[in-house]
This record gives sequence, structure tokens and C-alpha cells, in this order.
Amino acid sequence: MSIRTEIIAVGSELLLGQIVNSNAQFLSLELAELGMNVYYHTVVGDNPTRLEQAVKIAKERSNVIIFTGGLGPTKDDLTKETIAKTLGKKLVFDQEALDSIEQYFVQTKRIMSENNKKQALVLEDSFILKNDYGMAPGMALNVDQTIYMLLPGPPSEMKPMFQNYGREYFEKQFGFQEKIISRVLRYFGIGESQLETDIQDIIDEQLNPTVAPLAADGEVTLRLTAKHQDEHVANQLLDELEQKIQSRVGEFFYGYEQTTLPQELKKLLLAKQKTVSAAESLTGGMFSEQITALDGASQLFKGSLVCYTNEMKEQLLNVSKQTLDKNGAVSEECAKEMADQIRKLSNSDIGISFTGVAGPQPLEDKPVGTVFMGISFSGKETQVYRFHFAGSRNGIRVRTVKYGCHYLVKLLSEIE
Amino acid sequence: MSIRTEIIAVGSELLLGQIVNSNAQFLSLELAELGMNVYYHTVVGDNPTRLEQAVKIAKERSNVIIFTGGLGPTKDDLTKETIAKTLGKKLVFDQEALDSIEQYFVQTKRIMSENNKKQALVLEDSFILKNDYGMAPGMALNVDQTIYMLLPGPPSEMKPMFQNYGREYFEKQFGFQEKIISRVLRYFGIGESQLETDIQDIIDEQLNPTVAPLAADGEVTLRLTAKHQDEHVANQLLDELEQKIQSRVGEFFYGYEQTTLPQELKKLLLAKQKTVSAAESLTGGMFSEQITALDGASQLFKGSLVCYTNEMKEQLLNVSKQTLDKNGAVSEECAKEMADQIRKLSNSDIGISFTGVAGPQPLEDKPVGTVFMGISFSGKETQVYRFHFAGSRNGIRVRTVKYGCHYLVKLLSEIE
Repeated sequence: MSIRTEIIAVGSELLLGQIVNSNAQFLSLELAELGMNVYYHTVVGDNPTRLEQAVKIAKERSNVIIFTGGLGPTKDDLTKETIAKTLGKKLVFDQEALDSIEQYFVQTKRIMSENNKKQALVLEDSFILKNDYGMAPGMALNVDQTIYMLLPGPPSEMKPMFQNYGREYFEKQFGFQEKIISRVLRYFGIGESQLETDIQDIIDEQLNPTVAPLAADGEVTLRLTAKHQDEHVANQLLDELEQKIQSRVGEFFYGYEQTTLPQELKKLLLAKQKTVSAAESLTGGMFSEQITALDGASQLFKGSLVCYTNEMKEQLLNVSKQTLDKNGAVSEECAKEMADQIRKLSNSDIGISFTGVAGPQPLEDKPVGTVFMGISFSGKETQVYRFHFAGSRNGIRVRTVKYGCHYLVKLLSEIE
Repeated sequence: MSIRTEIIAVGSELLLGQIVNSNAQFLSLELAELGMNVYYHTVVGDNPTRLEQAVKIAKERSNVIIFTGGLGPTKDDLTKETIAKTLGKKLVFDQEALDSIEQYFVQTKRIMSENNKKQALVLEDSFILKNDYGMAPGMALNVDQTIYMLLPGPPSEMKPMFQNYGREYFEKQFGFQEKIISRVLRYFGIGESQLETDIQDIIDEQLNPTVAPLAADGEVTLRLTAKHQDEHVANQLLDELEQKIQSRVGEFFYGYEQTTLPQELKKLLLAKQKTVSAAESLTGGMFSEQITALDGASQLFKGSLVCYTNEMKEQLLNVSKQTLDKNGAVSEECAKEMADQIRKLSNSDIGISFTGVAGPQPLEDKPVGTVFMGISFSGKETQVYRFHFAGSRNGIRVRTVKYGCHYLVKLLSEIE
């Protein structure tokens, strides 16, 4: 049987443009991974007549219809009622949902209104999808070879419900024997087109696992997806493919799944018991901000000096007047001194420095995008990297910080 | 005539979940402002049969159908072709669009393929919507009392096309005599529910202009929208309403439209010719990063010290050992010394300091969310503010920086 899926979002706030339909995007990604074709997204308001018509159209053209929204306690929430009417089904109380709603009101010492009880109503004969993050349960039922799945509107409730219960429901309904396992590999320091060129033959020849590249914010990710009845074999397929890819582009690989460069840097600093401090000019505190955004940053980060003026570089960071006069603040020499000085001043193992021209105006006759980055590490010669970035002021700063993390990760990977 | 609008996005990438349908959100907001009802959003893939069916369904239930996407040069781009077929219209070359495409290829010294010419094809008898940011023109036509408008998919092309040409087309078609003018007022330091309570009677009694509150990231905005044939009168209506609102909640107002607290701070620092420096503990550089994100920051910002450890606070910032030992780093005394010291060290007019507990662990027996902020200004007594924020590590840091900007703006507004 060919699966033809339609996602219907119910909510006037979508039609007024107050929110974007991110639920449809999330579900589409999930369904693509399950191998289920999505042919339509529909958005309809909190209006029973138009919703009923939308359900009728969907019944004609789709055999899986997933609804999001309209399961709440107010009178605007009419998804269940409308579908019940369209399918000729009754609404009945789900005792478990009712209990958990009542319990919630006892716990929070609030008074439950009759409206809240309405959330425990479900379509008769439906399979209940538990809501671990809210009150309204989801449900799924198969009527005349068409599957109806009702999910709540708030993404914080809908997403875990689908991932924990909705997927499994479809796997069982359609007898998907195969396990689908994905692995995301993250790369930095290589462009998307270069990475794709380097592994084009692998991408082309792969049917299982598949390889899907994606570029964002100067990083490239590869999503490897394997299907197999045996989860162990699926993982083996991923291992083999990963090895093949890494033998080509492994030097740019930095981590798996949702990790970030600062997170990988944090892991390595903790593992090697090293501390870092930064002297930031063009990045203006962005490196420090990203490091301290992570829990437990105080174990690996002592502090930084944001030295935006030459005066600050000279007086607080002890960069020599001669260097500033002769080479300028945007120079290899200044980057080197900045890295060395911040390491010493803060008594850290590593000092990193960023100086350059974020724009929009050139500085010291150096064009916008010129960046020098110094890395000072006790017992090693201080390294200075030179970059020339294109893009906006913010883009240049973001890329600079990413390269900082990237080279620190490389350095720490190489030491004992 | 009642307007029933449907927005149809064409593109398989939407159904695969690779992108979110932000175009529909944008257009919905614009259409709401024009007073045009949007009843459906539809997403359909690059498939002529399903697109044709979607157009037929839309014709039955809507009298304004706006398409986004599928106007590009590849064989997947089939919106025009499908609509031409459905409406029994021919496609003809638009000479102006053809010229501009040819010119683009001459300028960029690239070779134009026949595919690119396809972008200059338009529906016969249609009104052309110029594409100032890309090659494919948009178009609009009225067939049997139904308006069809075709817009390109890339938001960078679609948005200006609609705002500059699409809106005007609808205004003329529907004879909207009224000008619709919006004004956004931004507030900080007051919760959404408090602000709404303070002006509930104004919100309730207003029909023209209308008032719509929106809360995001700890800020509240009010969108005032006036309609009138005479633009001057519409602006007067907004002025009167704004005055009425500001007399109640004006002390929390900080700016208009898309401005931010750091931008307002920058304006005031420049106007009053003052400089600022920061001593950042829990914020880890976030204040400095936001200030330096703005063009020309070097005129008002000299630098900062990110002092994450007591060692840094004592040795580089000269916070007294006694204060750190007796009161701790998270204390009024420490915040005061930090603000005074950074002002002196950096030779700035204003020093601001942030110290507190961002979490997830408590610090010095102070609970997560405890924040002290010092503001030192030459010739004035140093002020220390104490906060207790709820929320995540990042949420606490973000709110702290916003309050920092907020109080600096207040201070600068009050001085000569």
C-alpha cells in the first residue's frame, strides 16, 4: 500500500501569522525518516465548518491524516469534536488522562474547571498517545483504511509525544520491520561544496545507509541513515560508512549529533585539565560568552579581557606600544602579544586572542574581514592564524569564534 | 464582497521538512493588516497533478489565491505552467524581465541557458510584479472574480515584492480606500500581564486604532494599527492613542519598531558623548558582545573584563580580598567594587558590573537566579540593583544584560 500523508494544523493564530507552522516541518522530517510520503500540509482556523471540509478533502486524497492543535480546554479547541462528527464516532472519557488532569490540579492547588475535564475526552476505539508534558492526550485510530492521528498544538508537548509514541504506532500499523537509525557527523573548516566533491562517489553509490549533507552557519553536517530489521546491523552499516567518509574528510570532523564547537572544546579542556582565557578585540566578548554559556564553565575558564581600544590593549593587556605603533592592532605581532599576555595575566594554560576588522569600515588600511588569531600555550611556540572572511559584521565575528574553538580543539586533541 | 484568501506554497522541500513555511506566516501578517481574511494555508510538492488538484480545491473555496515558489528556472518549477493549464491561459515572454535576466548574465560574465529564459515567462494578461532582488517576476491576474497572485519562493525576493507591489495591487483591486498604518511600541521592565492589566480598558474600547500586545524574551510590544483614508489623520489617531497609553505605562517604554535595548543605549551614549565599560562575571561577556555587535561601537565602548573567578576579580579588577572573603563574589559590595574598578581601569565615564548565579548549581549559598548589578558613573553615587530571576542559565544571563541596558538607558536619559 502506498502511504499518502497529510498534516493538518488547526489554529487561527497560524492564519493570522502570529506563529509559524513549525509542527508541520518537524513531523515532515520525522515521517521522511520513517519512509512515509507527505503530500500536503494544510492549515485551517478554529472554525468547525471549514475544518470539517478540510477533513473531507483530506479523506479523499490521503490515507494518513495527522492533526496538530485544537485539543485544549477552551471552546476554540474543536479538533476532536469535529473529527468525531465527521467519522461518526463518539467522544468518551479516558480515565488515565482524567486522573492525571485531576492530580495536576490537586498538586498545584488550583481549582479544576469543567473545561479542563474536556481535555480527557478521546475518540472511542482510539489508541491513546500519552502526553508526558501536558494535559491533553493524543490519539490515533484507523477507520476505513485511513489513519487519523491527533496531536496537541504546543511543540513542547507534540514533539515528544510523536517521537515516543506516534512513531511506534505507525511502525506497528504499517508493519515497518526495519529499524531506521540516523547518525549526524559535524564538520568545520571545510566548505559544503568541497566536502561534497570529496565524497560525491560515496553519496551517489549509497542506498542504505543514505548520506545527506546540510550546510548552516559555516558548518557542514552529514546525516547518515541506515535501515535494517536488526538494529545491530544498522549500526554496523553506519560504522562502515562513517569510516569510509572519515578516511577522506576526517580532519574536519568535530563531533556527533547536536554538539557544538564550544561543547567539544569544553569536553577536551576538562579531559586534559586545562584552562583558557581570551583577549578579544573584534569578537568583543563573543568567545567568552559562548564558553560561559555552558554549565560548569568555571572549571575551565578564568576570564577574558575585551580590549576594544589600543589604550586597553596597551594599559590593561600590556601589549607593547611599539607593536601597536609599528604593526597596528590588526597584525600578527599584536595577536601574538595579546595571546601571550592574557595567558600570563590570567594564569591560564592557554591564551587565545582575536583581532581584526569586523567592518563596516576598514581599519588601519586593512580591509573588512581581515582577522588575526593567536594561540599561546605554555611550553609551545605561540601560533598566529590569519584569515580573510567575507560577509556581514556579525558573520565575520561568528566565523572568527568558530575558528578559535576549532583550532583549540585541534591543539588539545594533540597534547597528552 | 467578502474576501477569502488561501496561500499555496509550492515546493517538495517543505513537505520533506527541510524548510519551514515562513512565507505563509509573513503573508498572513501582511494580509491581516490589509483586513483580508486568510482561511487556508496549503503546501503541495513539485508535482503537477497534485498542484492542479490543489488549485481546483482552492478555486472552490477561496477568491484570492496566493502562490509562493515554483517560479525558478529548473524543470521542478512548474507553478506558472500548472496555473496556465488550469485557467486555460497562455504563457508569454515579459520583455522587461527577459532584458533584466540577459543583463544579469552579461554583468556576471556567465552564460545564460535556455532554462533561465523560462523565468521571464508570465501568464498572459497578468499584471507584472517586479522582482527587485532576483530574476523571476511575480504576477497577478483576476479570472472570474478570483485573484491569482504568483510570488517567488525565496523570502528575500518574495517579501519585498509583496510589500512594494503586491499590497498595492490588492489595494487597487479591492478599492481599499483606507491607508493602514502601524506603529510598534517596545517596553521593558514590565510583564505582559501587568502591562495588559494597566491598559485593558484602552485595548477593549479601541476599534481604530487597534492595540495588539505581544510578549517575547522578557519584552512586551504593543502594535497600534490605524486605518483612515487620510494618512495624516491615521498618524494623528496613532499619536493620540500612543499618548494615552504612555501616560499609563510610559516609564517602561524604550523605543519604536525593531529597535533593541543595546541600540537605544548606543544612541544615548553617542548623544551624551559617554563611554561605557563592563566587569562581567555571570554574563561572561554577553553585555560586551551585544554592544560590539553594533557598528561604530568603538566610539562608546573601550572594553571589558570578564572575570569569572575570584582570582581574576581580585588580581585584574582590584576587588578587595576582604569583600570577596566577607561578602562573597555574589554580593552588593562586590558588584559595587566591580563597577567602580572597571570604570577607573578603563578610564570610561560609566562602569557596569554583573555578578550572580546563572546555575545550574547554587553559589556561595545563594540560589540560582540571584543577580547583583552595579552602575558606577563619575560624580554620582554608585548604584547596585538586586534581582532574582527564574528560568534557565541562558534566560537568566539574557535578562541580566537587558536590565543592564535598561538601567543605563534610564541613567543616560536623565543626565544633561
